[in-house]
Amino acid sequence: MTQYKVPVIGGDGIGPEIVREGQKVLDAAGEVFGFDVDWIEFPHGADHYLETGELVSDETIKELGGYKAIYLGALGDPRLQPGILEKGILLKLRFAFDEYINLRPIKLLEGVETPLKGKTAKDIDFVVVRENTEDFYIGIGGRAKKGQKKDLLEVQRDLYSAKFGLDIETDSEEIAYQIGMISKEGTKRVMEYSYDLAAKRNNHLSSVDKANVLSDIYGFWRETFEEVGKNYPKVETDFNYVDAVTMWFVKNPEFFDVVVTPNMFGDIITDLGAMIQGGLGLAPGGNINPNGTSMFEPIHGSAPKYKGMDRANPLATIWAGALLIETLGEKEAADTIVKAIEKNILEKKVNTVDMGGSAKCSEVGTDIARLVKELG
Amino acid sequence: MTQYKVPVIGGDGIGPEIVREGQKVLDAAGEVFGFDVDWIEFPHGADHYLETGELVSDETIKELGGYKAIYLGALGDPRLQPGILEKGILLKLRFAFDEYINLRPIKLLEGVETPLKGKTAKDIDFVVVRENTEDFYIGIGGRAKKGQKKDLLEVQRDLYSAKFGLDIETDSEEIAYQIGMISKEGTKRVMEYSYDLAAKRNNHLSSVDKANVLSDIYGFWRETFEEVGKNYPKVETDFNYVDAVTMWFVKNPEFFDVVVTPNMFGDIITDLGAMIQGGLGLAPGGNINPNGTSMFEPIHGSAPKYKGMDRANPLATIWAGALLIETLGEKEAADTIVKAIEKNILEKKVNTVDMGGSAKCSEVGTDIARLVKELG
Ligand SMILES: CC(C)[C@H](C(=O)O)[C@@H](O)C(=O)O
Ligand SMILES: CC(C)[C@H](C(=O)O)[C@@H](O)C(=O)O
Repeated sequence: MTQYKVPVIGGDGIGPEIVREGQKVLDAAGEVFGFDVDWIEFPHGADHYLETGELVSDETIKELGGYKAIYLGALGDPRLQPGILEKGILLKLRFAFDEYINLRPIKLLEGVETPLKGKTAKDIDFVVVRENTEDFYIGIGGRAKKGQKKDLLEVQRDLYSAKFGLDIETDSEEIAYQIGMISKEGTKRVMEYSYDLAAKRNNHLSSVDKANVLSDIYGFWRETFEEVGKNYPKVETDFNYVDAVTMWFVKNPEFFDVVVTPNMFGDIITDLGAMIQGGLGLAPGGNINPNGTSMFEPIHGSAPKYKGMDRANPLATIWAGALLIETLGEKEAADTIVKAIEKNILEKKVNTVDMGGSAKCSEVGTDIARLVKELG
Repeated sequence: MTQYKVPVIGGDGIGPEIVREGQKVLDAAGEVFGFDVDWIEFPHGADHYLETGELVSDETIKELGGYKAIYLGALGDPRLQPGILEKGILLKLRFAFDEYINLRPIKLLEGVETPLKGKTAKDIDFVVVRENTEDFYIGIGGRAKKGQKKDLLEVQRDLYSAKFGLDIETDSEEIAYQIGMISKEGTKRVMEYSYDLAAKRNNHLSSVDKANVLSDIYGFWRETFEEVGKNYPKVETDFNYVDAVTMWFVKNPEFFDVVVTPNMFGDIITDLGAMIQGGLGLAPGGNINPNGTSMFEPIHGSAPKYKGMDRANPLATIWAGALLIETLGEKEAADTIVKAIEKNILEKKVNTVDMGGSAKCSEVGTDIARLVKELG
């Protein structure tokens, strides 16, 4: 029997309870498809930080880096300033493991209600590939007051490093600035991943940018998109301004097959994508390093006010579990889990409150585990 | 009789024909409400640029700066690289006249179909105030190759100036970077405008940012939002991450009253806003300097393939005309034009193809002019 070791970070709020259901389903899939998951629990999140002062230590990162895939619940706690856990844990891990692909299937499952008029499951079925380590997410910026300011900002990545020596002079009372950056290497690899994916799907790749205004950074993005495209003559391509993309997601989602987007725009359009596929309760995400450690999570937050109430919707997390197990090589198990989710929804018997049902979070997990065994 | 002088830039593609209908309607409103508009035509756009090499000269800017409100059709031409006309004319004028407010009413008119299930005119009625002169729109950035690069980037505004001396060292093959900046003065004034507007509406102001990741620039935005808010104790406020905002626009548009957003996020969410209010054909925008020269436009593009066909939908432009005339002090005329647009839509007799009708662009203009006289 194949044995997988998978680190689990339940995190904050509803994180631990939803991830528990994901584990339940993966354990059931293991019984059917002949693998066994050894879960290694990690305590990271707000409580752990408040008790120990540790967000994620270098040691922990080293340890986590020994595995192929991490299962993450959710992070975020009202006791802490915005950004502390997000940057200190989530983005920290994405960067530390150079998880340069944020993979977001935007798929309306049969039986799920979309908020869009006249759209059905066949219209909403595409994948967004969000670059996940560069752009405005490199976290460099600052403030300057009247007079002079010198600053040294550094980005260190596996792939490259960059130092920005900044010398600012302003006659404004105060300014705040932020620098975004993309590298040739970093842009190329996400393009290659996206073209490969498009070639495996319907040979249509759409790139998102705002090259008409943020011309320096996104002109470079566009160029690289075209360069890499020369190796994929069969893939049809188009450019889209990010503002227009939000319209097409609503009006013509059927237009899209694979969408490749810089980090920040990706953050925005994938939330909109989640909404059109039926809401955050149904949207999984993968942070992928094809040659290293990946991390899978629901894209919703920690919903602190529902913590411990056993009423959160675990479907996004269970679906993220399917993406995880697929990465580990269990494609059939992954497909079966998605089918089980679809069946659970269509049966309309065991669903959480947000989906119009009255079942508990744990009951939904149990039901999907049952369906996996039935379908597997 | 009051006399207004209004410069008109028809621009490219369908621009001239839609703005002509806007002029027709404003002329009719003048007859009813006792004012007269003296239209001053400007030739700027792709043709003018290709013939003369002029985008907008300093002289033209000086001349335009003598008026309170400019009427703009649309810019954009397939013969030119993306960004040339947008930056060289549209953004140039927004910046030259320090039009720091981009005002975007998101209002679903009676009789217009929204793509959202279960939403009606009473659910979609808010205003987005987009900061229009700072953020990532200041147009500074560049590229750097392995080795060293020094660069001097400057922003000169009425309000302040800033110089960024950049000294970049990278071991990447090549990088591209972009700098965004907001100033205290620039942020304060858009906040004050937005709080004032909320106080005149339903006392609810929502701020958009991404302070959990782009913390330097948007932490400053948040602070200023709170600071200015101390003078408006009656206005209820909330913070929203831009990614979440795209979801709420679709799920709970009724939550919003006034939304204040940095420039780039504003660009994105107002296009989504246009879509939920029935599409670009119905979305007007104002670029406003309350003490200087403002500029009004439909937010859609120049749709080059429909140029000269007299089939484009002029409603967004006519509505932009209403915003223009309101700025000049003719509130009653403005309200009547919006009512005429609503009536034209409800009557379902004279509508363009995109709205399910078969009327020409010019026939819609004529019909609304008639309705203005009827209602006025
Ligand atoms: C929590 C936050 C830092 C994160 C992001 O901005 O990437 C989230 O919105 C996401 O999309 O995964
Ligand atoms: C044409 C483009 C430069 C412009 C912008 O990005 O501001 C447009 O999208 C808008 O929203 O007015």
